[in-house]
Amino acid sequence: MKMGDARNRKFVVTKLYNLPKGEEFVLESGVALSELKIAYETYGELNRAKTNAVLICHALSGDAHAAGYHAGEKTPGWWDPMIGPGKAFDTDRYFVVCSNVIGGCKGSSGPNSMNPDTGRPYGLSFPIISVRDMVNAQKKLIDFFGIKKLLSVCGGSMGGMQALQWAVDHPGSVASCIPIAATYKHSAQQIAFDEVGRQAIMADPSWNGGDYYSSEHPSRGLSVARMIGHITYMSNESMDQKFGRMLKKGKLGYEFTSEFEVEGYLRYRGDTFVKRFDANSYLYVTKAMDYFDLQKDGKLSHVFKGIGARFLAIAFSSDWLYPPAQSREIVKALKMNGIDVTYCEITSDYGHDAFLLESDEQTKLIKHFLDRTRKQGKAR
Amino acid sequence: MKMGDARNRKFVVTKLYNLPKGEEFVLESGVALSELKIAYETYGELNRAKTNAVLICHALSGDAHAAGYHAGEKTPGWWDPMIGPGKAFDTDRYFVVCSNVIGGCKGSSGPNSMNPDTGRPYGLSFPIISVRDMVNAQKKLIDFFGIKKLLSVCGGSMGGMQALQWAVDHPGSVASCIPIAATYKHSAQQIAFDEVGRQAIMADPSWNGGDYYSSEHPSRGLSVARMIGHITYMSNESMDQKFGRMLKKGKLGYEFTSEFEVEGYLRYRGDTFVKRFDANSYLYVTKAMDYFDLQKDGKLSHVFKGIGARFLAIAFSSDWLYPPAQSREIVKALKMNGIDVTYCEITSDYGHDAFLLESDEQTKLIKHFLDRTRKQGKAR
Repeated sequence: MKMGDARNRKFVVTKLYNLPKGEEFVLESGVALSELKIAYETYGELNRAKTNAVLICHALSGDAHAAGYHAGEKTPGWWDPMIGPGKAFDTDRYFVVCSNVIGGCKGSSGPNSMNPDTGRPYGLSFPIISVRDMVNAQKKLIDFFGIKKLLSVCGGSMGGMQALQWAVDHPGSVASCIPIAATYKHSAQQIAFDEVGRQAIMADPSWNGGDYYSSEHPSRGLSVARMIGHITYMSNESMDQKFGRMLKKGKLGYEFTSEFEVEGYLRYRGDTFVKRFDANSYLYVTKAMDYFDLQKDGKLSHVFKGIGARFLAIAFSSDWLYPPAQSREIVKALKMNGIDVTYCEITSDYGHDAFLLESDEQTKLIKHFLDRTRKQGKAR
Repeated sequence: MKMGDARNRKFVVTKLYNLPKGEEFVLESGVALSELKIAYETYGELNRAKTNAVLICHALSGDAHAAGYHAGEKTPGWWDPMIGPGKAFDTDRYFVVCSNVIGGCKGSSGPNSMNPDTGRPYGLSFPIISVRDMVNAQKKLIDFFGIKKLLSVCGGSMGGMQALQWAVDHPGSVASCIPIAATYKHSAQQIAFDEVGRQAIMADPSWNGGDYYSSEHPSRGLSVARMIGHITYMSNESMDQKFGRMLKKGKLGYEFTSEFEVEGYLRYRGDTFVKRFDANSYLYVTKAMDYFDLQKDGKLSHVFKGIGARFLAIAFSSDWLYPPAQSREIVKALKMNGIDVTYCEITSDYGHDAFLLESDEQTKLIKHFLDRTRKQGKAR
């Protein structure tokens, strides 16, 4: 990852889409939201035919700020090495959109939004949402732009779940799909890790049943949840390479303060996360992932029937949270339907985090894949 | 696992060893304890030559009650399928000893013991202990019995670490050693999981810096720590087989109460654990495991130099917490020293928990191994 030279920094702003007044947004659970806000960013220009749009879907802790710099900030968006002029998602060529998922906490409707009925933050009165709901909200935004068909929808981790859900739910609106380090359903182990994170948050007395916006936030619980997550994002190998049994300050203290480098790292990651993320959103978004199961309406190969999109599925060798075997099952079910799919397993020690770190190989794969999708579209 | 017929139940009691008054117990950290209590149980009879003693070392959440029944209790000790007449550790033949580790909470000196200097429970004023300290305490007990040489020392998980430490620290006192699902050092990932568990406990306001014995205990924090542990004890496969995406009561509720079977299971395991375990002990015992590193004084093959014991190392195919590769490294280093070692990897879907569940195969392996050790001893 390169940090952009200050003079070449591309400044971006997050914008807000509001569902037109009078319209309702009906969730998978049947509950209707009378208000829907979607925070989003765009990079590059939409062409006149509106055929060059690429939707980027973010993971659990991501947001709409995928690339470029916000004024006054020193770090760029979460996938900046992948989005920009000449990059994988080449903004000289494509109109790239990224929006915050509903249930999130970075501008889109979620538990920290104002409930129009009460004038107070929703908290736990915000309805439970699913990956399908996230996608349907994004569809509203894409419709608003007047885009009939996305050139591509792409995402890693939970972003990959959204990409798959797009291809399944809106087959006519997606020309290609790039699920990265994804799965077609959450396994018992994945649910288990999420549930322990949620329990850590709900065990924090400051959580107060989700009603904490005017008092102390459940930072310790959320920090523990994030630490659990971090272990699952890294591989055993990368942890051993990065930390091994290294001690902080080089000395065994026989004490409970963090002595090993890995302890200090986890605490640091937990502590910084609580400054930028909302604990209730952590509950809602992990729950949406746990509900995710493309197979629930039938066999995976049946669910993929009628999909017109081309696929590029990417997995990482050391990812034990969403292991390559889960991507291979997706690929197999797509092939059973004669769908054009390329599978690529990138050898990496970074574990699940690799989708954020292994930019070079992903760039090559995605650049070619988008280029071919674009040319095929023109040839039609 | 069979539950004993009520009529055949073998009743046992936990006994207490006290370090003779005036003696001190000096820990690896240099701190001296003026009192040392060790809770222990024995099964079978010590022969006159005192050559038939087998020491069983327990894992993180275990205790001295390894086999038989306590009066009024319906469940036997934690390794009952392995210890008894005709079983792997045949009590018709061997004198089996199991003691609670120091730092534990089931009768041996630990943070919930009375500090003789203050007349109040130690809490965090109990000194940090190591696996070596656990072993040195067991050595006091073995000396008390007048046993010069253990026929075998055996344990799974943290029990395996103790067994290895015995062979390294007291080479003249151990005729054979059976480390099961063990490791020679805690890896960064293993330290990370322990640290998150500790953070969950310390994040609970009831923990109160470890001073909670006269008030509410930090049950929610300890419960979360136990849940994290449980995920690591099971394999992805066994979780999927046992729970998959099964819902409780068969219905999706769109709510944060536990809906998936696996969520309910984890909460149950967390909740039952807090009734039988002390949160401070969880801190001390996990910390001891994190300190465990046989290599810290040199290369593993050097550390094993001069060991006289025979070895049987057992690992389980689906154990990702202490994976077979770690056992194979132990075996390799033993072989480099020409030490008689048998390695057996048992194929099991149970993950790390397999050492408590796969009794049949372990019984065969251990029975023969002990028999041969006994015969070799007699032939000398």
